[in-house]
Amino acid sequence: MDCIFCKIVAGELPSAKVYEDKRVLAFMDLNPVNKGHALVIPKDHYQNLTDLPPDLLKEIIQIVQKLANPVIEAVGADGFNLCLNNGEAAGQLVGHVHFHIIPRLKGDNLHPWPGKTYQEGEKERIAEDIKKQI
Amino acid sequence: MDCIFCKIVAGELPSAKVYEDKRVLAFMDLNPVNKGHALVIPKDHYQNLTDLPPDLLKEIIQIVQKLANPVIEAVGADGFNLCLNNGEAAGQLVGHVHFHIIPRLKGDNLHPWPGKTYQEGEKERIAEDIKKQI
Repeated sequence: MDCIFCKIVAGELPSAKVYEDKRVLAFMDLNPVNKGHALVIPKDHYQNLTDLPPDLLKEIIQIVQKLANPVIEAVGADGFNLCLNNGEAAGQLVGHVHFHIIPRLKGDNLHPWPGKTYQEGEKERIAEDIKKQI
Repeated sequence: MDCIFCKIVAGELPSAKVYEDKRVLAFMDLNPVNKGHALVIPKDHYQNLTDLPPDLLKEIIQIVQKLANPVIEAVGADGFNLCLNNGEAAGQLVGHVHFHIIPRLKGDNLHPWPGKTYQEGEKERIAEDIKKQI
């Protein structure tokens, strides 16, 4: 398996770890959006959020919740973004599912993506299409 | 409670719903980053991820997982971002915790925030500070 996160889990690549248990690992992102930016991953290799066994996903999200305040307190942040990029088109750079905890500071000059508008009836039609796929 | 998401839950404001159960609601964002952009919320009012009872958070993340593929299939997307903005500094606009499922398309021209670099030993020091706060 040529996956850098699997190598971090196996101890074959170094990382600055912040949390570890039997199934979940958290460590510092090497190129942080803001300092303190942490990644939370399953130790087993799954590519996408949608591939994760539900029980493992539930464990991971609880660790995310447990780590969020420690991350922001450690760097004196005012809030955080939780992000997950699912697929290359979404900016997923490592094919091993990972949650980003990104500390945010007032005035850090990071801007949200702009919002679009719907034509009348369009969002209702898309909502119906989504419901058909569930 | 002057919360627009509580009013949506109560049926006092309209929404294009895609999923609803006893404790969780999902509906179309009015100003989508890309069309199909959905929000997943607890029906009860909690401001932040860190305020959510763990059992409710686990229910919500399972609904997010269940909805992700239907959202991207409905709009013919290539992937998605899962995002949660925790606190005003992080861009949280409505003070009722919500997960964003944002469909992504190849070439949609949305760019990730740039990464910074750490000085030697800095990320290890921050990791230690985070561990002390857990």
